[in-house]
Amino acid sequence: MTLTMTSMIYWLELTGVAVFAVTGALEASRRQMDIVGFVLIATFTGIGGGTVRDVITGATPVFWIRDPSWVITCAVSAVITYFTAHLLERRYVALIWLDAIGLAMFGVTGAAIGLNLGVSPLVAIILGTITATFGGMVRDVVCNQLPLILRPEIYITAALVGATIYTVGTAILDLPKAPVALAAFLCAFALRAAALLFKLQFPVYKARPGREY
Amino acid sequence: MTLTMTSMIYWLELTGVAVFAVTGALEASRRQMDIVGFVLIATFTGIGGGTVRDVITGATPVFWIRDPSWVITCAVSAVITYFTAHLLERRYVALIWLDAIGLAMFGVTGAAIGLNLGVSPLVAIILGTITATFGGMVRDVVCNQLPLILRPEIYITAALVGATIYTVGTAILDLPKAPVALAAFLCAFALRAAALLFKLQFPVYKARPGREY
Amino acid sequence: MTLTMTSMIYWLELTGVAVFAVTGALEASRRQMDIVGFVLIATFTGIGGGTVRDVITGATPVFWIRDPSWVITCAVSAVITYFTAHLLERRYVALIWLDAIGLAMFGVTGAAIGLNLGVSPLVAIILGTITATFGGMVRDVVCNQLPLILRPEIYITAALVGATIYTVGTAILDLPKAPVALAAFLCAFALRAAALLFKLQFPVYKARPGREY
Repeated sequence: MTLTMTSMIYWLELTGVAVFAVTGALEASRRQMDIVGFVLIATFTGIGGGTVRDVITGATPVFWIRDPSWVITCAVSAVITYFTAHLLERRYVALIWLDAIGLAMFGVTGAAIGLNLGVSPLVAIILGTITATFGGMVRDVVCNQLPLILRPEIYITAALVGATIYTVGTAILDLPKAPVALAAFLCAFALRAAALLFKLQFPVYKARPGREY
Repeated sequence: MTLTMTSMIYWLELTGVAVFAVTGALEASRRQMDIVGFVLIATFTGIGGGTVRDVITGATPVFWIRDPSWVITCAVSAVITYFTAHLLERRYVALIWLDAIGLAMFGVTGAAIGLNLGVSPLVAIILGTITATFGGMVRDVVCNQLPLILRPEIYITAALVGATIYTVGTAILDLPKAPVALAAFLCAFALRAAALLFKLQFPVYKARPGREY
Repeated sequence: MTLTMTSMIYWLELTGVAVFAVTGALEASRRQMDIVGFVLIATFTGIGGGTVRDVITGATPVFWIRDPSWVITCAVSAVITYFTAHLLERRYVALIWLDAIGLAMFGVTGAAIGLNLGVSPLVAIILGTITATFGGMVRDVVCNQLPLILRPEIYITAALVGATIYTVGTAILDLPKAPVALAAFLCAFALRAAALLFKLQFPVYKARPGREY
C-alpha cells in the first residue's frame, strides 16, 4: 500500500464527488433539462453533502470555495453526461448504482474528515452518514423525485456501516488508516449492492400506512 | 420556583427535541420505513431547527456536535416509537399534537438562545420562530408530505407568540426568566391547541387559488 | 454616475430582497395562506439566497441578523402584497416577472459580495448564481410547486450571465464597478425577459424522459 492516507481520502472524495455529480446529471436528463440545469443539479448533488458537513462543523468557507477544482469536477462530469447519457440503456439503473458507489465513498470520507476535525467517534459516524445521504436527498427533492432514502431497500445503513467501520477501525482500534478506509468502502458498497440485487430490506414498520386526517 | 433559568431552558429544549423526534418517527411509520429510516427522520426533525439556528448565528460546531447526547435522545425516541407506534389509534393525530408541544417549546428556547448570543429582540423572535418551524418543515418536505405550515389552522403564529412573550418579558420588561419562559410556552401551546380543536384560522387570502400558466 | 459602488450594491440588494419577497407572498396567495404564512414565505424567499451565501462563506452571523432591516423589508412587502394582490389580473405572470428582476439583481450582488470577501472569480460567479436561485427554489419546494429552475425556459443562465459580466468586468478587466454592475443587471434581466417572451430555451436533453424502475 503505497498510497498515503491523505491522498487515499482525497481520491475517494474526488471520485465520490464526480460519481454523485453524474447521478445528478442523469436525474437532469430524466427531467429533460438543458445543459445549465445538468451542471446545476450535478453540482448540488456532488458537493451538497460535503457542504452541509463543513457548515455544521464550522469549517467555513466550505471546501469548494477554498479549492474550486471540486466545482470544475462537477461541471465536467455534467457536460460529459449530457453528451453520453443516450448511450445508456437504462439511466435510472445507472443512477442508483453510481449513487451506491458515492454513498459508500462519502460515508468513509465524511467520517474521516470529521475525525480530522477532532469530533467524537459517534459524531464522526453521523457526519459520514449525513455527507453520504444529503447530496442525493437535495437532488431528489429539487427534482420532485421520491427520495432514494424513502425506498424500502437498505440505503442509509450502507453509509452508516462504512462510517462505523472506518471510525471504529481508526479512532478506537488504531489500525492503519488506508486499508481500513478501503475495507470500510468495500463493505458499505457490498451491502448496498446486495440490497439492490436481492431487494434486501429491514423489516419495515408493519401497521397500515398513513392517511390524511 | 426552584429551577434555575439555564436548567429550565435545557429541559424545555431536551423535551422539545425528544417530542419532535417522535413526530419524525411517526411520519416514518406512516411512510412504512425501516428502523434506520425512523432514526434518520427523527434526528432531522429533532435537531433540524436548532441546527439552522446555530448555523445562521455562527454558533458552530452546532449544538449536537458539541454534545452528542442530543443525537442519542433522537435515536432512542425513534426506537421507542418504532416498537410502540402500533398502540396508537390515530398516528397522525398524535403527530400533530406532539408537533404542537415541540412548536411551543422551540419558539421559547430558540428566542432564549438567540438573546444569550446577544442578538436584538426582533432577531431573537425570528430565531425562535425559525427554530420551531424548520425541523417539521424538513420532515414534511423529505417525506413528500404537505408541510403543516401550509395547512389553514394557525401554526407559525403560535411559535411567534411564544417567542415574542419570552423576548418582550425578559429582554424588554426584564421580568424573571423562568416563569416568563413557562408562561410563553403555555400561551403558545394553548393557541396551537385552540387552533386544532376549533379549526381556528386567520382569514386566508380570498381570491381564487393559483393556476399554472 | 454619482452613486458610489457600495450604495449601488446596497440598493440593488435591497430591491432584490423586496422583489423576491413579493414573489414569495404571491406564491402564498396562490396557496391561500393567511397573513403569517405570507410573511414567512416572503422572508424565506427574500433572504434565503443571501443566507446560504453567507453561511457557506462563513460570513456569520448572516446579514439579516447583523441588520434586521432586511427582515422588516420582507415583512412589509408581504403585508402590502396581502392587501393588493387581488388587483393583479394574473398573479403567476407577476410572480415570474418579479422573480426575473430579483434573479438578475442577486446574480450581480451575490458575485459582488463574494469578491468583497476575497474569493476567486470562479467562486464569485458560483456564489452569485447560488444567491440568485436559492431563495426561489426554497419558495417552490416548501410550497409544493414545480421549481422554476425545472421549467424549460432559460433561467439559471441569466443569473450566471449577470454574475459573470460583473466578475469579469471588475475583477479581471478592472473597470469601474457601478456601471459594470448596472450593465450586468440589464444583460441578465434582458436574457431572462427574452426567454419568457419568446420561450427561449437551450436544446434540452432529447432522449425519452425518466421512468420509475
